[in-house]
Order: sequence, then C-alpha cells, then structure tokens
Amino acid sequence: MAGAFLSFEGIDGSGKSTQARLLAEALRAQGFPVTLTREPGGSPGAEEIRRLVLEGAADRWSTETELLLFTAARRDHLEKTIRPALARGEIVISDRFADSSRIYQGLTRGDLSATVDQLHSLMIGTEPDLTILIDIDPAVGLSRAVARAGAEQRFEGMGLGLQQKARAGFLALAKAHPARFRVIAGDAAPETVAAEVTATALAALT
Amino acid sequence: MAGAFLSFEGIDGSGKSTQARLLAEALRAQGFPVTLTREPGGSPGAEEIRRLVLEGAADRWSTETELLLFTAARRDHLEKTIRPALARGEIVISDRFADSSRIYQGLTRGDLSATVDQLHSLMIGTEPDLTILIDIDPAVGLSRAVARAGAEQRFEGMGLGLQQKARAGFLALAKAHPARFRVIAGDAAPETVAAEVTATALAALT
Repeated sequence: MAGAFLSFEGIDGSGKSTQARLLAEALRAQGFPVTLTREPGGSPGAEEIRRLVLEGAADRWSTETELLLFTAARRDHLEKTIRPALARGEIVISDRFADSSRIYQGLTRGDLSATVDQLHSLMIGTEPDLTILIDIDPAVGLSRAVARAGAEQRFEGMGLGLQQKARAGFLALAKAHPARFRVIAGDAAPETVAAEVTATALAALT
Repeated sequence: MAGAFLSFEGIDGSGKSTQARLLAEALRAQGFPVTLTREPGGSPGAEEIRRLVLEGAADRWSTETELLLFTAARRDHLEKTIRPALARGEIVISDRFADSSRIYQGLTRGDLSATVDQLHSLMIGTEPDLTILIDIDPAVGLSRAVARAGAEQRFEGMGLGLQQKARAGFLALAKAHPARFRVIAGDAAPETVAAEVTATALAALT
C-alpha cells in the first residue's frame, strides 16, 4: 500500500473518531506507517484557527466567514500535515475533511452547497482516496452522545432535526461519489464496526 | 451624499492612513456621518483574525492560507462594520480593502492574481464606490517609513524591489478600473494632498 488519504465522516455520536483511531491501530499493527489527524485542526496553525472559530458565541461568525476560516485551516492542514505524510508514503487518516464543510456549512446552516464546492475547487482541490461514512440513526447517536460529558449541550445546539438533515446529506454525498465513499453501519459494537472498517480499507487501498 | 464606500490604497509610507483620517475629518466638518475603518481588521472578529495572521514568523502561513484568512476577516468586516454603516447612510472610509489582497497576496508573493479575483467574486463581491490610490515613489515612501518606529524592519522584510512591484501593480489596477480609481500624487505636504483628496471625493460622490 503506497501513501493513501482516508477520511472518516459521519454525524456526532456516529463513532467515527473511535473508528478512525481503531483503523490507525489496526493498520499500524500490520506494519503500515499511519498519520492519524483530524479537522478542524490537524496542524499547529489549523488548531489555532479552530480555537478562533469554536470559542465565543455560536453566532459570532456568519456561515460564510466560518467557511472561510475552516477552509484556511484545511489549507494549512493539507500543506503542513497531510501532503508531507503522503510524500513519505504514509497512510493519512483524517477524522473529518471537506465533506464536513459540504454538510455543516453547505447544507445545515443554509444553502451554500454551490459556494462550498467552488471554494473547495479553488483553494483545496484534494479529495481523499477513500471516505468511510459511519452511518447511524441520529436518535442512536444522541443517546450515545449524551453519555459523554459536555456532548448534550452541543446536541441541543444542533437539534435532532438538523442531525437528521446532516445524515441525509452525508448519504446523498456517498451516493453521488460511489467510487470514493464506503458507507458502514455504525449501530453495532465498536469492535464489530472496526472489523468491517479495516476490511473495507484494506480492500479499497491494496 | 447618500451612503458611500471609499477605500484608500497605496504602498507603505504613501501616507494613505493619514489621508484617510484627514478625509474623515474634512467630511465630518461638512456634516457628513463618517465611519473610518481599516484592513486587515475593522470589526472585533476581523481584528482577532488580523492578530492571528500577523503574529509569529513571516512564513508561518502560505500565501494561499493568508489569503483565506484575510478574506475571512474582510467578510466579517463587510458584514459587521461596512454594510451596517452604509445602511445607516454613512460614508465608509476604509484604509485598504480588496485591492490590497490583489497586490500583496495576488502579485508580490507569487502569481495568485486569478485566484484572488475568483475568491473575491465568490465570497466578497462588494467593491468600493471610489478608491483613492495615493501614489508615491517607493524610495520616498521608504525615507518616510524609516522615520517611524518599527517601520524599518517591515520595509527590510518587504524590500524596495517588492515595493516597486506593488506600486506598479496598484497603478495597473487603477488603469484597469478607471471609473472606480482616482490616483493622487502623495509627494506633497499632507495638507496639500488632503485638499486634493477632499475635492476628489466630493466631486466623485456628490
């Protein structure tokens, strides 16, 4: 397996961060060099932009300004973390990438889908070789997320209706890009999901 | 005079900040409501982005990331400061606006002119009603700037050659957009330049 770029996507509570970590461990156990990263953030500069976006009131930035800040962070993440790791022949696993902007700035906070796509083409360009969408019913995700400290408030801010919209948006993206996406049900136990994720990643990338 | 949006552009040491302030004073003295602002910055959020861009090493951000951060700041400045003031019928005077990105990110740090223009069309759109370019020989600007504390270092970082490139770029922009630009020589005493600036602004906007 040469250098490859994998992303995990999914709504809050889908377990994608856990699955990204478990896949990194599984691939490392097989001897692959892996860089595990995340968005927003993933490089020192991008983490500073992340703090700037996420601190303060929720309506502090308009959706357009938030999109520009996240795109600036993504550009830095791409330049400083993702591309260098790929150039070293590593497998890069990112917990969220541009599809999250397509959903969260492009769809659920208004209809900026076309703007998000044009901005991505202009300033980022890169797509993952493989995107694993961990799909889960938002109600199940909610019951998991409220078990985590602080997560309840974030879910209340987002609202179950918006989570359902986000889920539908992710599934529509997967359908529109079948060569890049694999949809994996996230309802089962983490180890069960992880086995399917690892098999899917190895099948797609080797 | 209804609400109007004026910008000042020019290389470092051209005196544009002084002229922006003197025009604001002259228009207020005639009873016009004026909002005097500046870029990068001009709104609380944009000022925070400004600090993020300008602190740290000069090569901390790539030109593309810097362009995205300045565009995020400009979007916030536009939404939170410029548009509300125009809606109140005020004259907005901004010390720098999008033309500075066309020169400093688009031209002098590489050839990103097309990218800067596309990003501006996609995320900003607005142009000033009038842009006053204070034109000065970079060598004259340099001799003024070194008289200011801390300015010498900035000039050394920029280099006289790049300042000459910036001046030529600003003049080319003015030539390409004759309806919007007025070029005023900045070599004379500030009061002399200010009289011409005020006359030009009043002629263009009333």
